[in-house]
Amino acid sequence: MPRLLLNADMGESFGPWVMGQDQAVMPFVDLANVACGFHAADPDTMRATIALAMKHKVQVGAHPAYPDLVGFGRRTLACSPAEIENMVLYQLGALDALCRAEGTRVHYIKPHGALYNDMMRDEQKLAAVMKAVAAFDAGLPLMLMATADPVPARALAARHGIGLWFEAFADRAYDTEGFLVSRSLPGAVHHQTSQILEQARRIATGQPLIANDGGELRLQADTLCVHGDNPESIAAVAAIRRMLDTLK
Amino acid sequence: MPRLLLNADMGESFGPWVMGQDQAVMPFVDLANVACGFHAADPDTMRATIALAMKHKVQVGAHPAYPDLVGFGRRTLACSPAEIENMVLYQLGALDALCRAEGTRVHYIKPHGALYNDMMRDEQKLAAVMKAVAAFDAGLPLMLMATADPVPARALAARHGIGLWFEAFADRAYDTEGFLVSRSLPGAVHHQTSQILEQARRIATGQPLIANDGGELRLQADTLCVHGDNPESIAAVAAIRRMLDTLK
Amino acid sequence: MPRLLLNADMGESFGPWVMGQDQAVMPFVDLANVACGFHAADPDTMRATIALAMKHKVQVGAHPAYPDLVGFGRRTLACSPAEIENMVLYQLGALDALCRAEGTRVHYIKPHGALYNDMMRDEQKLAAVMKAVAAFDAGLPLMLMATADPVPARALAARHGIGLWFEAFADRAYDTEGFLVSRSLPGAVHHQTSQILEQARRIATGQPLIANDGGELRLQADTLCVHGDNPESIAAVAAIRRMLDTLK
Amino acid sequence: MPRLLLNADMGESFGPWVMGQDQAVMPFVDLANVACGFHAADPDTMRATIALAMKHKVQVGAHPAYPDLVGFGRRTLACSPAEIENMVLYQLGALDALCRAEGTRVHYIKPHGALYNDMMRDEQKLAAVMKAVAAFDAGLPLMLMATADPVPARALAARHGIGLWFEAFADRAYDTEGFLVSRSLPGAVHHQTSQILEQARRIATGQPLIANDGGELRLQADTLCVHGDNPESIAAVAAIRRMLDTLK
Repeated sequence: MPRLLLNADMGESFGPWVMGQDQAVMPFVDLANVACGFHAADPDTMRATIALAMKHKVQVGAHPAYPDLVGFGRRTLACSPAEIENMVLYQLGALDALCRAEGTRVHYIKPHGALYNDMMRDEQKLAAVMKAVAAFDAGLPLMLMATADPVPARALAARHGIGLWFEAFADRAYDTEGFLVSRSLPGAVHHQTSQILEQARRIATGQPLIANDGGELRLQADTLCVHGDNPESIAAVAAIRRMLDTLK
Repeated sequence: MPRLLLNADMGESFGPWVMGQDQAVMPFVDLANVACGFHAADPDTMRATIALAMKHKVQVGAHPAYPDLVGFGRRTLACSPAEIENMVLYQLGALDALCRAEGTRVHYIKPHGALYNDMMRDEQKLAAVMKAVAAFDAGLPLMLMATADPVPARALAARHGIGLWFEAFADRAYDTEGFLVSRSLPGAVHHQTSQILEQARRIATGQPLIANDGGELRLQADTLCVHGDNPESIAAVAAIRRMLDTLK
Repeated sequence: MPRLLLNADMGESFGPWVMGQDQAVMPFVDLANVACGFHAADPDTMRATIALAMKHKVQVGAHPAYPDLVGFGRRTLACSPAEIENMVLYQLGALDALCRAEGTRVHYIKPHGALYNDMMRDEQKLAAVMKAVAAFDAGLPLMLMATADPVPARALAARHGIGLWFEAFADRAYDTEGFLVSRSLPGAVHHQTSQILEQARRIATGQPLIANDGGELRLQADTLCVHGDNPESIAAVAAIRRMLDTLK
Repeated sequence: MPRLLLNADMGESFGPWVMGQDQAVMPFVDLANVACGFHAADPDTMRATIALAMKHKVQVGAHPAYPDLVGFGRRTLACSPAEIENMVLYQLGALDALCRAEGTRVHYIKPHGALYNDMMRDEQKLAAVMKAVAAFDAGLPLMLMATADPVPARALAARHGIGLWFEAFADRAYDTEGFLVSRSLPGAVHHQTSQILEQARRIATGQPLIANDGGELRLQADTLCVHGDNPESIAAVAAIRRMLDTLK
């Protein structure tokens, strides 16, 4: 059983504005999804975030997004596949150059926000992201959402000659197809640490989750997405980290 | 005598707005200074410009600038050396990623507009640009302005472990120190093709120019900067190209 | 029969980039839809466009858009009604301030591109635009597309206490409900000047158009949208102007 | 003796990023300098800030800046006077439109950051700002820095037909000409509340300050600039407010 990696969004400050608690969260994660200037971050923020990741031996991933600072990349922008391919390349390269100045490189790609959601729903957009990754460096994995059926995404990735990392969530309820239950529904978000830890443990050990209809859901996940927005969530990340370390 | 290369600014369109006549100029130049999204160009424009350069076997260079689309990068923005270093890295990497998708790479760096002027006047800013180039790929030359005394720039470049390409101008009058005569003064710009060709020939063959005080000016130049904004200037570029080809 | 006004998009240059032939088109129109900086134009372009309109006694209208320069406001951005209301207010006020410096004011509002299309399809978005207009100055009409059934839009406008100007197109084929035939279909765009003039004349005189299924379509239009992108279209605008002047 | 008004920068959040503690500071001030989208704030932030000001019966002022979100408007951008005039008009109008939606209007103008500093040093830039204010509404005062000699600014304002509000600082040391002692020098910033309150009291009652060379400095100030970035500074603002209220 390969080790389940923890990934978190990082470098989401912008100019004079601070967001997140990167210093507090970085020690607990394996993968830092670093904003690339389109939804958050500027070149200086990116560089400082990479340096922080290096200090904690955390792998840097590119976290490209639609160009929408005001909306933080959470609003869909009706872009063509070619536009998506080129904007992903642009952001990927920009982050990689700043990585070089800190003695590292981009290790993977995870699209952000609305771009992430759109590529999960629209195969043309997913293919556009894959083309960008393949053109940049086919050795870099693309991170996307683990669902009950990974076959279509794997087939598409194989066609583009790239690898995939599937991510799961410990603090969200799933439906039987492996999609997240909408936040507008009751029980969509787990708040109890014990429940979050149990879900993380099941994902890490390959045990099925219980979907929102009571059925079993098997997710093959390479990484778990965690958040460190506030003291509670940082404590949860630390607890997941400790639990995962006991599984080694 | 090494061959004098012709460089021109390219890819200065932006979104729906077209600027320049890249298709007409590209066949005559060796080096395309491609805008990187801060003063002009978007990812799609950058990609199309790279593809055009590839078609004509023209080397792609990064043309990074201050973040100022409205001012086209021609207005100085009071940035720190660290900010300059990081914004150059960001733009360099962004362009390089789009190059990869077209099967090429960035071959050199030439800062644009106010950033170019500022680095020529301020050694700290020049050093910041050099640090960016060295961190990205010390094998890439930095293009800057040839003046009567290239020693200080060469010494600084040696300290940063990078090479330099000096550029000269065929259509501008020089003072004895090798700086361009201000456009506000009479005779600053050569308009006659015969005069432009003669200055280009002298630069290409290592003969001294006549400075604006009548004295001799010796410039060691690796490349000549040309412009293709209108039919006249494109004709001048074509004429310079033919003249240089006769020197081989 | 009230006079049919001609409206055209103006001030679509941006920073160093020129778009459109405002100087050539302005003499023939009554209403200039001036870009407000979100999809095109900067404060200097806006001011110059207003001055040009004033010179030709043309009324200035605000042409607000989604914040998307690269996409020229033609890509839908998934904004909430409150975001739309505030971005319309922002752009409306910005243009009005520049109008004051030229001795005029904003006279009407016509949303641009994807925002225009979205408000035509989504009553919540249309209501958001109307709230912005009402809050700014309820005396300013909102320009939208004339369709076979103006009743719902009129009812909504009445609820917000504002007036409407309906616009029609002389160079586009309509379906029986008064919507434009998609450009992807044959016959969607009229290219013959005689056909354009005939459609303009019918709209101006209240005669029915022939829809794409051969049926009659009655449109009540206050203004006709014209374009001046190239010599042919400018000639068509001039011809429509002359034809309308003969109807007075 | 007219009442000394307290002004503070407000609405400096941007999109998802929060800055400042507007809710905590607003109850203590008279004037809110609201960012207009160029260095901070977006239309939604501006509207919410205006609503908060209205709730506390605080006058809204426009706080226009150079277009530089990453640098928070603190980096000089080499703009022409005409560019400054038009960018001030744009921002002024944008804020005013959002004010209308909350039932108020812009009451004054205070340029931000580098634009403020530049206009204090360059009469052409100050005149450009004044032209913008005069064109928008000559009844609105322009806020600038009180120095030992207010005569030149008053003369320039009179030529443009506008009024001035001079602002002073309670927490900064002054030189004898009434300019702030550079923050890089010792003693430039007052940290003790008693010292801040004493300086505020002297300004409010027209008594001379002690300049950094021990001499007397007489400043005629209409308003005092206060900051509420952290609990200490908010406490200082509250203390100044109470002290001023005892002077009535």
